[in-house]
Amino acid sequence: MAAVSPASRFSASQFSAANPKAKPFPSSFIQFRLSPSRHFPSSSSAAAAAAVPSLPRKSFSTSISCSVRPEYIPNRISDPHYVRVFDTTLRDGEQSPGATMTSKEKLDIARQLIKLGVDVIEAGFPAASKDDFEAVKAIAEEIGNAVDEDGYVPVICGLSRCNEKDIRTAWDAVKYAKRPRIHTFIATSPIHMKYKLRKSKEEVVEIARSMVSFARSLGCEDVEFSPEDAGRSDREFLYQILEEVIKAGATTLNIPDTVGINLPSEFGQLIADIKANTPGIENVIISTHCQNDLGLSTANTLAGAYSGARQVEVTINGIGERAGNASLEEVVMAIKCRGEHVLGGLYTGINTKHITMASKMVEDYSGLQVQPHKAIVGANAFAHESGIHQDGMLKHKGTYEIISPEDIGLERANEAGIVLGKLSGRHALRDRLKELGYELDDQQLGNIFWRFKAVAEQKKRVTDADLIALVSDEVFQPETVWKLHDLQVTCGTLGLSTATVKLTDADGEEHIGCAVGTGPVDSAYKAVDLIVKEEATLMEYSMNAVTEGIDAIATTRVLIRGENKHTPTHALTDEPFERTFSGSGAGMDIVVCSVKAYISALNKMLAFKRRAPAKAAAASSPDRTHVSA
Amino acid sequence: MAAVSPASRFSASQFSAANPKAKPFPSSFIQFRLSPSRHFPSSSSAAAAAAVPSLPRKSFSTSISCSVRPEYIPNRISDPHYVRVFDTTLRDGEQSPGATMTSKEKLDIARQLIKLGVDVIEAGFPAASKDDFEAVKAIAEEIGNAVDEDGYVPVICGLSRCNEKDIRTAWDAVKYAKRPRIHTFIATSPIHMKYKLRKSKEEVVEIARSMVSFARSLGCEDVEFSPEDAGRSDREFLYQILEEVIKAGATTLNIPDTVGINLPSEFGQLIADIKANTPGIENVIISTHCQNDLGLSTANTLAGAYSGARQVEVTINGIGERAGNASLEEVVMAIKCRGEHVLGGLYTGINTKHITMASKMVEDYSGLQVQPHKAIVGANAFAHESGIHQDGMLKHKGTYEIISPEDIGLERANEAGIVLGKLSGRHALRDRLKELGYELDDQQLGNIFWRFKAVAEQKKRVTDADLIALVSDEVFQPETVWKLHDLQVTCGTLGLSTATVKLTDADGEEHIGCAVGTGPVDSAYKAVDLIVKEEATLMEYSMNAVTEGIDAIATTRVLIRGENKHTPTHALTDEPFERTFSGSGAGMDIVVCSVKAYISALNKMLAFKRRAPAKAAAASSPDRTHVSA
Repeated sequence: MAAVSPASRFSASQFSAANPKAKPFPSSFIQFRLSPSRHFPSSSSAAAAAAVPSLPRKSFSTSISCSVRPEYIPNRISDPHYVRVFDTTLRDGEQSPGATMTSKEKLDIARQLIKLGVDVIEAGFPAASKDDFEAVKAIAEEIGNAVDEDGYVPVICGLSRCNEKDIRTAWDAVKYAKRPRIHTFIATSPIHMKYKLRKSKEEVVEIARSMVSFARSLGCEDVEFSPEDAGRSDREFLYQILEEVIKAGATTLNIPDTVGINLPSEFGQLIADIKANTPGIENVIISTHCQNDLGLSTANTLAGAYSGARQVEVTINGIGERAGNASLEEVVMAIKCRGEHVLGGLYTGINTKHITMASKMVEDYSGLQVQPHKAIVGANAFAHESGIHQDGMLKHKGTYEIISPEDIGLERANEAGIVLGKLSGRHALRDRLKELGYELDDQQLGNIFWRFKAVAEQKKRVTDADLIALVSDEVFQPETVWKLHDLQVTCGTLGLSTATVKLTDADGEEHIGCAVGTGPVDSAYKAVDLIVKEEATLMEYSMNAVTEGIDAIATTRVLIRGENKHTPTHALTDEPFERTFSGSGAGMDIVVCSVKAYISALNKMLAFKRRAPAKAAAASSPDRTHVSA
Repeated sequence: MAAVSPASRFSASQFSAANPKAKPFPSSFIQFRLSPSRHFPSSSSAAAAAAVPSLPRKSFSTSISCSVRPEYIPNRISDPHYVRVFDTTLRDGEQSPGATMTSKEKLDIARQLIKLGVDVIEAGFPAASKDDFEAVKAIAEEIGNAVDEDGYVPVICGLSRCNEKDIRTAWDAVKYAKRPRIHTFIATSPIHMKYKLRKSKEEVVEIARSMVSFARSLGCEDVEFSPEDAGRSDREFLYQILEEVIKAGATTLNIPDTVGINLPSEFGQLIADIKANTPGIENVIISTHCQNDLGLSTANTLAGAYSGARQVEVTINGIGERAGNASLEEVVMAIKCRGEHVLGGLYTGINTKHITMASKMVEDYSGLQVQPHKAIVGANAFAHESGIHQDGMLKHKGTYEIISPEDIGLERANEAGIVLGKLSGRHALRDRLKELGYELDDQQLGNIFWRFKAVAEQKKRVTDADLIALVSDEVFQPETVWKLHDLQVTCGTLGLSTATVKLTDADGEEHIGCAVGTGPVDSAYKAVDLIVKEEATLMEYSMNAVTEGIDAIATTRVLIRGENKHTPTHALTDEPFERTFSGSGAGMDIVVCSVKAYISALNKMLAFKRRAPAKAAAASSPDRTHVSA
């Protein structure tokens, strides 16, 4: 599980297969002009590697997994080529519009992150709300103690603003993990200090220093500090505040390009400068956190790692606010393909075969779909052409394909074939679902089995995609409050769309309602509203067929907003924001699955406790200000 | 129209507003270590600018448009800071799975590309099929002669493989333009020469040289040459073949990272090396063409431009095969935001206010939707948070926003407000549509107007998004063969889904069919099939609500494949591939718009002439081989 595959066998083998003597990239390549730094002086990458002679240089020329993950020590990595992967899908990703997840969904994703082998899971922002706190705590308890046979267990990290209340709350959530971490941050750019914090440089330094110290005083031995908007901060001030937090006990320093304004050269230089000019920096890990506003987050992250960062903060599918974050799959695959040739031998501990499943799961739970031409995980990423002569391409994959689909756990449709049919039994279904990464209990399997049989009766082929849609629809649903019993709809261009629905509530009681609307979904949703009596605004609605063919299973996703009742605190802006809730439904009738999606979103909304954000956590509260000396 | 706005006022003004004395990035920054080159020696960007003393350096410190587009000369740009934008949405983008466009759709997009002010439009691959030829010719005739008052007219470019037949066909299509260009290519990497071409280096050089010479002999004074898979080609061989094609008369040398394997440092170095080592390179323009397989296409393109490329090949929304190409909006906005500070003063001639409309149009026609967190043009790209205190953010936009939505022509929903209501007249509708970029004739306007009134009767607010959906549905449809007259559907969990459809054919004759299916769409599509009698496989189906609210207008997109009848030739693989056809439908009833989308796709399919690819253009034909000396 914790096996590490640093070898970039794709590219390497292709180059050498084509022309063993070809020297594809001159050894004099360097990525960025660096300021003097210990590990990577501004010379060639070969020289950079040679500059750390006291540590054994791994051989990357074979495709055999030849390395184990270095032992976890908060502020040190024994192998200078190892890059820690810090996944913040559950924190930064989850705070993007519509991506709200339940605790159960977060746990599912965290289990998948273990399979990937991420080093650190940022599980949430515990001070945001009671729900957020509980989700982080649940992940710390379960995922944070799932030590495998190799001793691997991810660090569980909680975000907190720079105040005692937040930090204490974060600690109370993560302390159950075997390797807990507190991540605290404060803005350091002129524009943020002036308009958001309204504090002087001296005040900001003192808050940072004292709060890192406070976090350590709670017993937390792994403290990450971020100077927010570092990409636009004054260099000398950065060195100064970072020096102070190192002295106060920070173990990782994360350098965020919060607004995504840096170009790779700038960001690489920023990391190199920090590495060269911050006293005590050799005793901590430098980390990157790159937003994607100009489409450069992956390149910036790689530039940061090349310049000496040994932790990269990423999200699955690159989700996050605005244009999102650097995506785990792009950063990891770029390091895997080119780490040896271009990045001085960098590697990660990620088992890339779990990327596809992680991507699908996050797409499903966050409601944020990836575009067909998304790198690595998009539907077209490996489809060179639709067509007759695909064989021709497959025979010489290297001609246009630098990554093999199998390496990210993606089976080509024509290779996967028809896995299950109407005669397949419960055992075959369980096995296949297990191969797909789903381990279900007997009751869940029973439910899926009967739906699978129903689909198999109507469809010739039941593909993996169909199965995943059914599992999502059946198993990965919020706890049921309302359940669809029956639906009857008439629509078209000739009359008024009319829908009748029968729902059962948590007590099993049946309720029937009917309504007229502008279309079948409008009328059905209105009928549901008549029964459920919850104010909700439909914000987004989308549907996709899961597989080819008119008889495909369709998956509907909806996003709804309640009426200002769910307002956790936003980590960066310090302001309450409205939660939105996604729901999905799958089936062969698009109107039925549209109604199921709506009910699923309503159930998700009802599952969240209704509370205003904790007052003490708000921006202008006395608790916040008293920590500034 | 051709106004150029090189000033990066976003970032510049934000930095200076926050702290006028802040020196956000040291002037000693350089992006890549460059080989010696004339314009940008490996020193600071200030020094780089100083190194071209004979040309006036523009002042970029104000936000006033202070420059006009340099006069077009194929192999030279008078201003060394000007970067040409070469849009290949209609060629590379259109060849991605499902993105097939009709000639009419291509013309619409080409008109939008003029508004953007792109320097070169690659209109297609004329030898692929008769349809492709006609589309390129139509664009050359109309768009290629639309000279504006400033003398701007885009170059119209046609792609061709390196053989006489292809080149002659390309010339016959583009020669009608005021500024025609032929773009020819041949692979130069060991793996491609060995497995795809089965030719020696010497043969490849001779083909390239003689075919560039042939293109010039036809009277084409603007010839672009690409060494395919340059990212994996041997350096010395590249210098050699490029030297030969320069001598033969090539005016632009395009350097493609065909498989998207390069990291920015590598690609920048590749361009720098070519610039430094290719005899005669000072007499041509170097171009970039970066695929996005590792998510690095934008960064690679910028690295190439910084290293001396003065043409960037991009597509709207970054569409293209596999993970697509560098996206126009990311490259252009990165240059606009950071060109002065980090890229030595580079700028483009793009009017960024037309980006949003171009993005929506390409999304609609190609069927390739952009993800919500797509940089620049994604739905969330500017939505910092959903919520109550959005005002707080708006008051200090610079805190988290580096680009203003208005700069890409995006109006915030709360600023755009309710533009039209049920009392709005035809004149108001025409004006608003014109502001949105749609100029309709009277008949089109009449059709839209009555649909608008019908929507306004049922919806409280008719937004721009609603209008755009209606225009797409009404105006931007393939020529009608079949038209939906009436539809009647019954569905739900209680009975069998049954649909009855009435269609009219091109002669106005009515046909009625009914069918039973697994859901309302399945039954309705089967009923359509009974009437239309065309073999078609549904490959993709998706639907999105255009606006918030249960009574929203929904847009359905479908992608179908005919039965091996539409097989143009693929430019890169030399093999025939199957065309697929997208269709869309909009309306308030999801079943009705699903049927409209299906009929639209069928009409698109029927609009394409059925023919096998021209035999002479096929890979192994004698025409192909006889050009190799």
